[in-house]
Amino acid sequence: MITLTTSRTPLEPDHVPGAVEALLYQFLDTQIDSSPDLPELDLFAGMLRDMIAAGGKRIRPVLCVVGWQSVTDRQPPQAVWRAAASLELFHLFALIHDDIMDASMTRRGQPTAHCSLAARHSDRDDAAALGVNAAILLGDLALGWSYDLLHTTRPGPARHLSRAWPLFNALRTETLVGQYLDLLGSGPGAAARPDITAARRVIRYKTAKYTCERPLQLGAHLAGAGTTALAALSAYALPLGEAFQLRDDLLGVYGDPEHTGKSVLDDLREGKHTVLAATALQRATPAQASVLRTGLGNRALTEAHASTIREVFAATGARTAVENLISQRCEEALAALDHAPLRPGATAALRAMATAAVTRTA
Amino acid sequence: MITLTTSRTPLEPDHVPGAVEALLYQFLDTQIDSSPDLPELDLFAGMLRDMIAAGGKRIRPVLCVVGWQSVTDRQPPQAVWRAAASLELFHLFALIHDDIMDASMTRRGQPTAHCSLAARHSDRDDAAALGVNAAILLGDLALGWSYDLLHTTRPGPARHLSRAWPLFNALRTETLVGQYLDLLGSGPGAAARPDITAARRVIRYKTAKYTCERPLQLGAHLAGAGTTALAALSAYALPLGEAFQLRDDLLGVYGDPEHTGKSVLDDLREGKHTVLAATALQRATPAQASVLRTGLGNRALTEAHASTIREVFAATGARTAVENLISQRCEEALAALDHAPLRPGATAALRAMATAAVTRTA
Repeated sequence: MITLTTSRTPLEPDHVPGAVEALLYQFLDTQIDSSPDLPELDLFAGMLRDMIAAGGKRIRPVLCVVGWQSVTDRQPPQAVWRAAASLELFHLFALIHDDIMDASMTRRGQPTAHCSLAARHSDRDDAAALGVNAAILLGDLALGWSYDLLHTTRPGPARHLSRAWPLFNALRTETLVGQYLDLLGSGPGAAARPDITAARRVIRYKTAKYTCERPLQLGAHLAGAGTTALAALSAYALPLGEAFQLRDDLLGVYGDPEHTGKSVLDDLREGKHTVLAATALQRATPAQASVLRTGLGNRALTEAHASTIREVFAATGARTAVENLISQRCEEALAALDHAPLRPGATAALRAMATAAVTRTA
Repeated sequence: MITLTTSRTPLEPDHVPGAVEALLYQFLDTQIDSSPDLPELDLFAGMLRDMIAAGGKRIRPVLCVVGWQSVTDRQPPQAVWRAAASLELFHLFALIHDDIMDASMTRRGQPTAHCSLAARHSDRDDAAALGVNAAILLGDLALGWSYDLLHTTRPGPARHLSRAWPLFNALRTETLVGQYLDLLGSGPGAAARPDITAARRVIRYKTAKYTCERPLQLGAHLAGAGTTALAALSAYALPLGEAFQLRDDLLGVYGDPEHTGKSVLDDLREGKHTVLAATALQRATPAQASVLRTGLGNRALTEAHASTIREVFAATGARTAVENLISQRCEEALAALDHAPLRPGATAALRAMATAAVTRTA
């Protein structure tokens, strides 16, 4: 059994990442140790370990713990840490499979799982396909292990689990459907369908519910939150999640790669159907529309063409519209906390996180 | 809550498939009903429903129920039916992802999931990739739902679950690693590595443990089986599972497609690293080896070349060796039942299943 205790105060979200990482490393070691007849697990568990070590904000684990703290001043028990770690392992699964779907080459400055696995078999004619196939399996393993982390909670898995299960189930289903909506909206034809409603629906399921609402509710639910508290957390989390993703979309086009770790061409080349792009397409003159249609989703997009697209985003007012939407959503999120029946310490932490999330540069 | 009762006698494994299918259909309907904001679930749940309706032997659910019956004469409770249905839903996940990895076009006489999803988007330039990506998500959803089926067991999920969980975890990890081993062994270069030990290791994890041992143990464990009974079931299941797969491999090369529903060229074209192929490669003369090396894993393999390969399998004695291995493993499985501490009715059912599994023609 893995146990984890912390002597830090519960209202310092900063200590959550380290605690969750330690729990994940211990859990992965346990998986290897429990199957001595399967040495291949060294490879798979090692890759997950490397992905964790390579970075990540652990925003979902942090929100899960803050969710607990929004309901009670008691120290979070094992079940909360397990749930937080489970969210992070689920996230690794989602990243691995998303990177396959997006054909991404790097993640957190390292080769993506399918590229790394292909490189291991570079002597084979089918190395690229083998890399993708093995990465599908790695993702499947991470998904299954994210359930094991919940299941092996001690003491009292049953009561905690039965409380949290419907939320975990909802989180998973919503995230997978959100990814499907993203697939449907993206690609070379995306620029032909300027649909702000569809773009916002992707954000709702792929980010707002998955990254903010469900993790917070999961932690709160484990603490025995009532429907009023859960609704208050939702009223905060959904607009904040939308603001968070809208900021991400702006950083994907205008960000500083040295801070974000991401190219400012990838989203444009992928034809990601963002609110930014959809708004610009709706407002564009025929000449501007032509710049967008020939550039968005074009895998061979040049920096010069990307620069013209950025000018169109500004000239149509799309960039300003998205900035305004971010401010508006952030205000909604903060307003939802004003009379929320949540512990004051957690409310203060949530306010600080909201401001940080929407003004960030990385 | 979904309930299921049966008035049939517990020692008629024939009624298990229908009962499990009914439970799965109800479960899928519940998933759709519980997310009215996600109409996309109609598509995904509908595809899983169609896969179930298209066929399948339900061998894992049957063995799970027989596992229960090997320990007790009591009627299997809800938890056993849930576990049985969960195994089948897990199997659908495995089929969907395996078919992506094998680039298979048909399954149970219908288009595979990724082909079917590609066809839905045939108006898009990226239809094939979109089909694969959406099918990865469909498999992920089925994997997650296979856990939900266990979790939503009533009454008494906790006690049953905590008993069964380590076995379910082992089954999943072993199956995924087994598939990885299969990927490593198959492909255009497979004929260059005649490795019977590797071929048998794939069988052990991808079939013997996944299809026979773990489902039986899962049902027995839910009935409170002791280590002696679990060991006896393992001693029966592992050789039987190997015999089952060896028969499958022979049917994949020599079977009647009208009975098996499978082409007798697919396994050869895929370069599946079977014990049959590895044995033939080890025993082949240089001329015979050349026939094998140019044919196995050759996507353009002709029926004439396949016919020559079949002759080499016979002339090297590989076909006879595999037939002998099947008989030997079947005898081992049956001998394991002789003094096993299992209920007589279940033992009789297991004997009948062993004989049927290794003499089957489909």
